[in-house]
Amino acid sequence: MHSTFEIATRGPGLYEFTREIAAWVAECAPDEALLTLMIRHTSASLLIQENADPEVRTDLTGYFHRLVPPSTDPSMAYLTHTYEGPDDMPAHIKAALLPTSLQIPVISGRMQLGTWQGVYLFEHRARPHHREVVALLR
Amino acid sequence: MHSTFEIATRGPGLYEFTREIAAWVAECAPDEALLTLMIRHTSASLLIQENADPEVRTDLTGYFHRLVPPSTDPSMAYLTHTYEGPDDMPAHIKAALLPTSLQIPVISGRMQLGTWQGVYLFEHRARPHHREVVALLR
Amino acid sequence: MHSTFEIATRGPGLYEFTREIAAWVAECAPDEALLTLMIRHTSASLLIQENADPEVRTDLTGYFHRLVPPSTDPSMAYLTHTYEGPDDMPAHIKAALLPTSLQIPVISGRMQLGTWQGVYLFEHRARPHHREVVALLR
Repeated sequence: MHSTFEIATRGPGLYEFTREIAAWVAECAPDEALLTLMIRHTSASLLIQENADPEVRTDLTGYFHRLVPPSTDPSMAYLTHTYEGPDDMPAHIKAALLPTSLQIPVISGRMQLGTWQGVYLFEHRARPHHREVVALLR
Repeated sequence: MHSTFEIATRGPGLYEFTREIAAWVAECAPDEALLTLMIRHTSASLLIQENADPEVRTDLTGYFHRLVPPSTDPSMAYLTHTYEGPDDMPAHIKAALLPTSLQIPVISGRMQLGTWQGVYLFEHRARPHHREVVALLR
Repeated sequence: MHSTFEIATRGPGLYEFTREIAAWVAECAPDEALLTLMIRHTSASLLIQENADPEVRTDLTGYFHRLVPPSTDPSMAYLTHTYEGPDDMPAHIKAALLPTSLQIPVISGRMQLGTWQGVYLFEHRARPHHREVVALLR
């Protein structure tokens, strides 16, 4: 069984969609399965992260902004792929550092996430985007 | 088929559990399958890494400690999620940079790891923890 | 269904093998399946990245070379696993930061990659290598 999720983003940061995924898994009602999610883009990522304190998301965005600064930053002067904006090549680098796909075992019809784990899309581009995530239950 | 592995950790570093996983796979005796391992936490990771020289593990721990220093480090002054200790938010960041799940093809009943590949839990917190890893064979 | 792909590398950088994988998937002709690719080494990685502008690959290689410099760099003086050459331990670190396996949903016989996504082997060692990638369709 498969589906596609569309997620609208408005700038860098983490967008949770755990409930949408859980609802689709419940609808499919598999007994035991592997859920795979894959994002069809190279400038945004997927991530399983803490779903309790929103400060964790703020700090993750802040850390990755410092680890991979915009291409206008002097430390990034060696970059050559810069004509699509200062956030473009850093977005590709973040997409290399962070997951393009997630795998979540489903047992007795439920995703086996830990208590504090949520499913997020991590947007790396500044402008609003519509992102596609393919979901597969096998 | 699925199972849960519990791994006790005593501070940051890599804990190998290749043999425990191989024993369970042998018990299940699949012909061809995909093995998925997922850690149910956001402050520890899973990793496939070299299983020969223990210095590789020491250096990996050393590198990630420098890449993501404790929140008491002046370079991390921008962090806001700091009340659970100086190793808490860095642990979440390391959990974003390193895998939450691993996938290993199983062919003729054996995991297709390379000669030098071992399966590790990478603990990021200072205090002892009990970590849960869900294993799924499909 | 499974197969093994052998990829020859001549120094650090990204080597595309999307077409080889797509040809094998077409030959297997699954209706719906999960494609898993796993590299059997701890000093090279797999990556889904932009397949349009070759500058993206140049910049990715440049970024990771700066994020994890050779062990002869003063900032890496703490490394202990250095006797296999200055690019050895950095290769293991890059292999921890980048994917060892990829997962791509296959629907109606086709990999569900986005328009700009290609499949790459990311070599981290300086000398030529033959790399093995296990492919599994389930």
